[in-house]
Amino acid sequence: MTSDIAPPISGATRLYCIVGDPIAPVRSPAFYNEQFRRTGTDAVFFGLEIAAKDAAAGFAGLRAMRNIAGIVVTMPLKKLFLPLVDEVLPTARLVGSVNTIRREADGRLVGDMFDGRGGVLGLKWHGHDPRGRKVLLVGVGGAGGALAFALAEAGTAELTIADLDAARAADVAGRVCAAFPACAARVGPADPRGHAIAINATPLGMKPGDPMSFDPARLDPGTMVFDIINNPDPSPLALAARARGCPAIGGRAMYEGQAVYAARFLGIPITIEGRAI
Amino acid sequence: MTSDIAPPISGATRLYCIVGDPIAPVRSPAFYNEQFRRTGTDAVFFGLEIAAKDAAAGFAGLRAMRNIAGIVVTMPLKKLFLPLVDEVLPTARLVGSVNTIRREADGRLVGDMFDGRGGVLGLKWHGHDPRGRKVLLVGVGGAGGALAFALAEAGTAELTIADLDAARAADVAGRVCAAFPACAARVGPADPRGHAIAINATPLGMKPGDPMSFDPARLDPGTMVFDIINNPDPSPLALAARARGCPAIGGRAMYEGQAVYAARFLGIPITIEGRAI
Repeated sequence: MTSDIAPPISGATRLYCIVGDPIAPVRSPAFYNEQFRRTGTDAVFFGLEIAAKDAAAGFAGLRAMRNIAGIVVTMPLKKLFLPLVDEVLPTARLVGSVNTIRREADGRLVGDMFDGRGGVLGLKWHGHDPRGRKVLLVGVGGAGGALAFALAEAGTAELTIADLDAARAADVAGRVCAAFPACAARVGPADPRGHAIAINATPLGMKPGDPMSFDPARLDPGTMVFDIINNPDPSPLALAARARGCPAIGGRAMYEGQAVYAARFLGIPITIEGRAI
Repeated sequence: MTSDIAPPISGATRLYCIVGDPIAPVRSPAFYNEQFRRTGTDAVFFGLEIAAKDAAAGFAGLRAMRNIAGIVVTMPLKKLFLPLVDEVLPTARLVGSVNTIRREADGRLVGDMFDGRGGVLGLKWHGHDPRGRKVLLVGVGGAGGALAFALAEAGTAELTIADLDAARAADVAGRVCAAFPACAARVGPADPRGHAIAINATPLGMKPGDPMSFDPARLDPGTMVFDIINNPDPSPLALAARARGCPAIGGRAMYEGQAVYAARFLGIPITIEGRAI
């Protein structure tokens, strides 16, 4: 991509967008437009800034704009858009939010949620399949909640859920156990000791001076640390884990993982360098 | 523009769009994106298909999408969007429709109408300033109505308005006279004889076998024929006029003329090859 070449956009170009607030930091336009370029697809992907208070009006507008074929949903709209779509697929219903919406040929808007599965795919890409393992998950807000269900779906044997909001942690643990009885999900402390994989799904680490969501000094040798924050990537937690000899990955793996599922759902052929998809 | 280069669109890219139905035939995306490319502007222009029945929801959505900086409005939304904008500038109020909407720094959406002025600019580009002249205008629907006011504003001495809808013709003639008393606007037959400029502002000529909106055999030598239809361009009427030795121009002049005004209104620097703007 070079900055002095205009897009070959016509009135017939198929449109895809990411919606959220703030929208300036999102990476999806660059990612998807590169896929369109690579495959010679007459489509374009852009970001629309819609504030939480405008969720209903923004969604109605997206529905009215009939040549918008697909929508990626990011903060703060993931939960707000769930009751607005015409059909909620099972994972989105379990998690309670949507991150991808597709317009069917008959005009219906169908929503699904790929953040959790994307994070699991990212772990697998790095050789850390959670199947049969014991996993610590700290933070079960939007992305963390999605990860809880996806980790259970992927065969995690034991899932320790830690959250400053104890009621939320208990709620997610209970719903994970109900949906995936083979996974022993329980509330526990944010202590990585004894876990094969330890995940930070809180925003801690994005701001300088943030405390870490768990103590890297308590990591067992070989425990995989997955810090889902994007910026900085690697995060202080990931760097501390590596300093102790533990493998660690950042938010990019989760982003790219969900993008694989989202693109499939939207019918966009994609490749990610170095990743089997 | 080449089809294998993706746009360098990020979440921070400024958005412009054209809205209407059908949207596939519009030329504005190619036109404006070429301007952005030429000037290295981090902006993108695309078309959003919004049906007439969805005008209110579509408009509310455009309002909610805060990084959409400007909107070009085409059929069938020009009249429907007029009562929805926060401020209607005088020409749009006179004409009764908007074709360009700008988002101010405070979020207000301000609408104006440049179709008429654009057509007059197109005439001037081709050496046919209507000032002091006698002009026949056939068809005073959306674009024709806008032209009626712009021709009067530009100093047309006598304006003959012909329309199959006699009440509409009389209404426009009366409102033109009220707004521009120096212009003698009156309803008359679709007869070009005695006019310096004869304009087709009906859709006649777009479909094979359409009758012509006036008889080219009745053109005086030297009468300028302006057929605002875009496709075909030149139209059968324009070709018939040229066959009689009369100058004739098509819809491109009107499109490019209004684009000059619309781009200025939207703060987009533009150039049009061979045109003084």
